[in-house]
Order: sequence, then C-alpha cells, then structure tokens
Amino acid sequence: MVKDEIKLRVRYAETDRMGYVYYGNYATYFEVARVELLRKLGINYKDLEDGGIALPVADLTIKYLKPAFYDQLLTVRTTITEVQGVRIKFLYDIFNEAEELINSAETTLVFINTSTNRPCAIPEDLRIAIHSRT
Amino acid sequence: MVKDEIKLRVRYAETDRMGYVYYGNYATYFEVARVELLRKLGINYKDLEDGGIALPVADLTIKYLKPAFYDQLLTVRTTITEVQGVRIKFLYDIFNEAEELINSAETTLVFINTSTNRPCAIPEDLRIAIHSRT
Amino acid sequence: MVKDEIKLRVRYAETDRMGYVYYGNYATYFEVARVELLRKLGINYKDLEDGGIALPVADLTIKYLKPAFYDQLLTVRTTITEVQGVRIKFLYDIFNEAEELINSAETTLVFINTSTNRPCAIPEDLRIAIHSRT
Amino acid sequence: MVKDEIKLRVRYAETDRMGYVYYGNYATYFEVARVELLRKLGINYKDLEDGGIALPVADLTIKYLKPAFYDQLLTVRTTITEVQGVRIKFLYDIFNEAEELINSAETTLVFINTSTNRPCAIPEDLRIAIHSRT
Repeated sequence: MVKDEIKLRVRYAETDRMGYVYYGNYATYFEVARVELLRKLGINYKDLEDGGIALPVADLTIKYLKPAFYDQLLTVRTTITEVQGVRIKFLYDIFNEAEELINSAETTLVFINTSTNRPCAIPEDLRIAIHSRT
Repeated sequence: MVKDEIKLRVRYAETDRMGYVYYGNYATYFEVARVELLRKLGINYKDLEDGGIALPVADLTIKYLKPAFYDQLLTVRTTITEVQGVRIKFLYDIFNEAEELINSAETTLVFINTSTNRPCAIPEDLRIAIHSRT
Repeated sequence: MVKDEIKLRVRYAETDRMGYVYYGNYATYFEVARVELLRKLGINYKDLEDGGIALPVADLTIKYLKPAFYDQLLTVRTTITEVQGVRIKFLYDIFNEAEELINSAETTLVFINTSTNRPCAIPEDLRIAIHSRT
Repeated sequence: MVKDEIKLRVRYAETDRMGYVYYGNYATYFEVARVELLRKLGINYKDLEDGGIALPVADLTIKYLKPAFYDQLLTVRTTITEVQGVRIKFLYDIFNEAEELINSAETTLVFINTSTNRPCAIPEDLRIAIHSRT
C-alpha cells in the first residue's frame, strides 16, 4: 500500500472555544496530507487540476477519538487504500505528540474531467506510480 | 422525530478555487443547524456548555452528492435520529435553491461533563423536550 | 451616505481557544455585510462577478476594541464612504448585543475587469444606485 | 530589529472562487509567522498564554498588492518593529515564489493578564530576548 506521513502544527485559528481543534478543520489536514502524498508519487495536484482533472471528495467519514490542542505538532499518516475505476480512497490516522491516535478518517474522491464535468479514469501516470509502490 | 430546518447563504469565504463550497466547511453548516434545532427545543447550547456540559462530535459521515455554490441560499434539514445513553445523533440533509439534495450527513455527539471530562447523561430538560416532540 | 445593517450570529467554528471570535474571521463578516449592502442597492455581487467584474480587496484596516463571543448576535453597520474612479470604500462597525462597539474597520476594493485583469470603472447601475441614495 | 522568515504552502481550503487566497486568511498566516518568530526568541506562545498572559490583536492593517494562489510556497518575513509599554508591533511582508511582494501588513498586539483581564507589561524574558537581538 502507498503510504506517507506529514507533520502539521495546530494553528490558533483552527482551535475553538473548547480549546480543541474545531471538528471541521480536520478536513483541511486531510487535504494537505493527501496532496503531499500525491506529490511524493510525482503528481502535483494543482497541475492535475489545471490540466483538466479535478478530484472532489465524494464522501468523508471521521471518528474523533481524542482532541487535538493548540500548537501540537500532529502527525498525519495517509494511505491510499483503493483505486478502482474513477475512484480513489485515502485513509488518514492523526497522532499527537504522545503518539496517541486521536482521529481516524476515510475519504473517497472521484476523478472528474473538468471540461465535461463527468467522472473519468485515474490519470495513467498516477496509476503507474501507485502500482509501482504497491 | 424532532426536526428543524434553517436557511444559510453561502459566503465567499466558504468557496474554494473549484468554485464549490470547500468540503470541510459543511461541518460548520451542520453545527449551526443542530444548535438552532436545540434552540427551538428550548436549549441554548452556549448555556449548556457554560453550565458544564459540552457536546463534542464523536463521529461525522458526509456524502457529497452535488456541489454548493457561492451565494446560494441553502436549506439544511436536521433530524435528531437517536438519543441513547450519553449519545445523540443528528442527521442533516442540505438542499440547494432548486430543492436538489446536495449533501447528506450524520453526526454522533457525546454529552461530556466538563468538570470530570467524562461522558454524562443527556440533560433532563433536553430529554423531555425531545420526547415531548416525538 | 449609503448605509445598511445586518445581524450575524457567531458560530462555534469562528471562536478560538481564547473564547473570542478569531481576529481573522471578521474579514468574513465584513464580506457578508458589504455583499448584503450591494444586494439592497440592487446589485448581486455574484452576478457582477459572473458578468466579468470582480471586486477584490485592496486594503483592510481593523481596530479591535472588545472581543465577540460565541452565539452573540452581532450587528454589522456598513457604510459606503467613497466611490472614486476604480475604487470603493466601505466602513464597518460591529456592535454586540449590549450595543457596544466592538470593532471598527475599513476596506478599499477595486473594480477589476476579469477578462483583462485590469481595474475598471464602477458599473453604471451601481454608481446610479449609490448616488440616488446619497 | 528582530526578524524571522517562514515558508507556508497555500492550502486548497484557503482559496476562494476567484482562485485567490481569501483575503481574511492572511490573518492566519500572520499568526503563524509571529508565533514562530516568538519561538525563535525562546518564547512558546502557548506556554505564555497558559501562564496567564495572552496577546490579542488590537489592530491589523493589510495592503493587498497581488493575489496568492493555490499550492504556492509563500515566504512570510516578520519583523518586530516596536515594543512599547503593553504593546508590541509586528510587520509582515509576504512574497510569492517569484520573490514578488504580494502583501504587506502590520499588527499591534497587547499583553493581557488573563486573571485580571487588564493590559500588562511585556514578559521580562521576551523583552530581554528582543533587546539582545536588536
């Protein structure tokens, strides 16, 4: 399986009055994590999108186990768990500095041809990059 | 079942370069929707939290069916689907101005006693308010 | 002078660990306020932009006098203070429920022709709408 | 003068339908930049706040010169320009990858004793750290 790991420091802007990272802000962390994973596979997501293939999120599931707090340096471990037809699945596990799992999530994204606005196959170079790592 | 509906206009800040509402921003819409539903049940969430009971989100599942766009006046229909022990479940359906379902989600929230940081039973007045409407 | 007033309720997502509305989030409140003021003048900002005229912010100045808190129903009073050449200035005063001024800001926005990406004159219907109210 | 520089990559979440970084999101970049500058001076802002001294923003001025775009690796150059009584001023210049200045800003922050909620003097270790670098 294709895996990657990034570090992200919690910004003040991302916390809420409970002192936790606001539950909706993890979606941004997942975005950053999967874009960096793609970058390591040789795919620049911006270029992909500018070249006419977008990758919107079709579904998102998050289980919140523990809160994250301001200034923590979080680790996001990302795995591509499935590439099938027009879809790609990413799994994310976020760990705090004590290496506790605080959050676990999954997203399904769909390749969309932005000219036709229709689903399309995974770009060939990405498919090859994923398979050569598997 | 206890239901409510609110209208929310998409802010420029909430859109992304694809022209869609960013996928993580729906979490905020759900927050606003459930807080307004609680308000209609006679529960002010801020007072609840200031009184020592917080309601963090334990899990979130979203299915994205269609994008929402800038300046659209969205309708969020919210239903309390389950109250069991220390947990409460909300279901959300978001509709665009053409009354198309664009997004469907579910959250589980847990009542937490903020002094002990432990799960606690649903506040009695909320339990009664929900049951009297069911 | 052309004036308008809107009400905005502070969302949980907009607070930070200090319990205040995060200082960057007021920019969104100003955006909502000026778009609603334009709407009352008969100008839909989305249509303007889709028609080829964007209105990016050239400068922003905010003085933070008091914090805003979760769930407060804020009042944003907006005034168009100047329309000159390719520029338009908005002044914003935000009041809390006790009618205390908590925040005062000014933005300059520039009309941009999105085809040429160059500044352009204020649209004629907006100019007339502003002058007929002055 | 005390200076520092950080790199920040623009997140998809931070862009808007114009394709630009939303004008309110720069406030977050400035927050990250000043916290990192304080960290290099030996001051952990979280510890400062947990120790009873908060540093809310009293005013913010931004001049937007050019837009920032998705995935750009921005450089934020931060300078402490003034420390006077209970106030500290930071200047920020943001550069894109072509080393063009896209944005210039200034913030004044006030040291607040969070027990009394009153302004207080700059912490001695921070004052010394700044002066030893000047």
